[in-house]
Amino acid sequence: MQTDLSTLLNQALAELAYGQQPATLYDPIRYIMGLGGKRLRPLLTLLGGQLFTDELTPLVRPALATEVFHNFTLVHDDLMDQAPLRRGQPTVHEKWNASTAILSGDVMLVRAYELLVQHVPLALLPRVLQRFSQTAAEVCEGQQWDMNFETQDNVTIAQYLDMIRLKTAVLLGFALELGAVLAGALAADAEHLRQFGTGIGLAFQLRDDLLDVYGDEATFGKRVGGDIIADKKTFLLLTAQAQASPAQQATLGRYVGQPLADADAKVRAVRGIYDELHVRPQTEALINEHFEAALHHLARVAVPAGRKQPLEHLARQLLDRES
Amino acid sequence: MQTDLSTLLNQALAELAYGQQPATLYDPIRYIMGLGGKRLRPLLTLLGGQLFTDELTPLVRPALATEVFHNFTLVHDDLMDQAPLRRGQPTVHEKWNASTAILSGDVMLVRAYELLVQHVPLALLPRVLQRFSQTAAEVCEGQQWDMNFETQDNVTIAQYLDMIRLKTAVLLGFALELGAVLAGALAADAEHLRQFGTGIGLAFQLRDDLLDVYGDEATFGKRVGGDIIADKKTFLLLTAQAQASPAQQATLGRYVGQPLADADAKVRAVRGIYDELHVRPQTEALINEHFEAALHHLARVAVPAGRKQPLEHLARQLLDRES
Repeated sequence: MQTDLSTLLNQALAELAYGQQPATLYDPIRYIMGLGGKRLRPLLTLLGGQLFTDELTPLVRPALATEVFHNFTLVHDDLMDQAPLRRGQPTVHEKWNASTAILSGDVMLVRAYELLVQHVPLALLPRVLQRFSQTAAEVCEGQQWDMNFETQDNVTIAQYLDMIRLKTAVLLGFALELGAVLAGALAADAEHLRQFGTGIGLAFQLRDDLLDVYGDEATFGKRVGGDIIADKKTFLLLTAQAQASPAQQATLGRYVGQPLADADAKVRAVRGIYDELHVRPQTEALINEHFEAALHHLARVAVPAGRKQPLEHLARQLLDRES
Repeated sequence: MQTDLSTLLNQALAELAYGQQPATLYDPIRYIMGLGGKRLRPLLTLLGGQLFTDELTPLVRPALATEVFHNFTLVHDDLMDQAPLRRGQPTVHEKWNASTAILSGDVMLVRAYELLVQHVPLALLPRVLQRFSQTAAEVCEGQQWDMNFETQDNVTIAQYLDMIRLKTAVLLGFALELGAVLAGALAADAEHLRQFGTGIGLAFQLRDDLLDVYGDEATFGKRVGGDIIADKKTFLLLTAQAQASPAQQATLGRYVGQPLADADAKVRAVRGIYDELHVRPQTEALINEHFEAALHHLARVAVPAGRKQPLEHLARQLLDRES
């Protein structure tokens, strides 16, 4: 099922025309869109729609808007974060330059709107575009909070959770809501699906934070301990800082925010504090809480449980919680 | 008349809410939108609409979308061009930083769409958004060509004219078309207004190129000769290079694209070649050609000539061709 939908999405993606000239503007778009990835957001749109209809063809092109938008945020975020690699390949600003990353990203945002304008039925268009614009602004707000936090001393756990909600989760919520709306769902069902997506998104980002510290490098795909090395204020670090004894505070203070001498020693020391404070099970409990809350919203969508099975399956896959 | 409309626009601009938190995202938007300027694009929308209706209130908020979009392009272009000043004040990336300029600009593009989605009647929305998206992509294409030309050796005059059409003129065309469409104009009239705006835009940009060389520093507001010093491939330089004798080519070659020794000497030498080749009257002739073509399109709009007077007056003002 999911494989069929992924094939459908990848065919439609391959047919998307972004523009031709100047090639220096449009080649980077084809490049980043061609780097692959799970196509999670449009997949969520189709799976959300599938709760209410079997005719998914009209949903495919609007669904791609969320993928184009997501890749626009990757291009601009990678530039702001000075990231050299994306999916193991050079980022757009590395392969071309900063100006190209800015401008090609801008056009991608325009093309995302265009996909919705061209392929969403008129009666649904204002609502869809209104929700898309709100989501797009929230994603930018999340990225700005994330950058603010780099130089902000007193980030609270609540602020951190709100940041990842904006930066990551709301777009998953919108992708699901879009599928529901396009498939003719009632407003209450579309809202439950949006909240399901937001909850999954929060759980997914927290799991990413956890894997960065406790993951298996081979399957995680990034260097384990990268967040610790970069002093990233994740849920794990903020929790440890909030709960540390004076001695543990001192240990953290010797490494966090200090010039990096020995990366492995830093990762070992900070992870040691996490272990002492049981940060891992606390994070797992919060992941579980958001995951269960999300499932609760899915349960309240007024369609037979059997139709929800693919969506629940994907959520469990994403969070590595196969039932 | 124009004063009344400007007051109307500035009041509505002052009431626009872009967002509050994080302030590091939204303060830069209020800053750039507050730097003033002629508000030319929304003014064109209102003057375009006024040909067909006396009830301009419903046009004001959609009109602001073109101003927000224009300022988005200024924020991103200034960053790409590393410009320190905009309207005599620090640019957003100078006052904050590059990341803020990227992200605040992104949100401005979202807010421009939002203004149209919220304030354009449903029946007109797909057409307006389709044309806006096309225009937005074209403006990005124009900026990319402009950057490409900096390192491209064989830029033709036709390529240059196409670049300024995309980068500057099409948005003026869209602003006028938007006014016509919102005021219920026939498609043929809206198209004539669009072409009027594009022609005025081309003439206006060529005039800017001319003033950069031959303008009065006090009224021009920028350093005269700036384009020559920066080796900017303007219509004037490309025309001179196309028409220069071997001796004149040699003179140009000693200055253009060479390390800058004496800025005043360079400006004098290049302007000397322009004078010898009569580049100024050639530029004036082309400005006039586009201006007359634009007026021809305005003349073909099927409303009484008296209604066109404010629009024609603004066009003449812009090009300093008061009749």
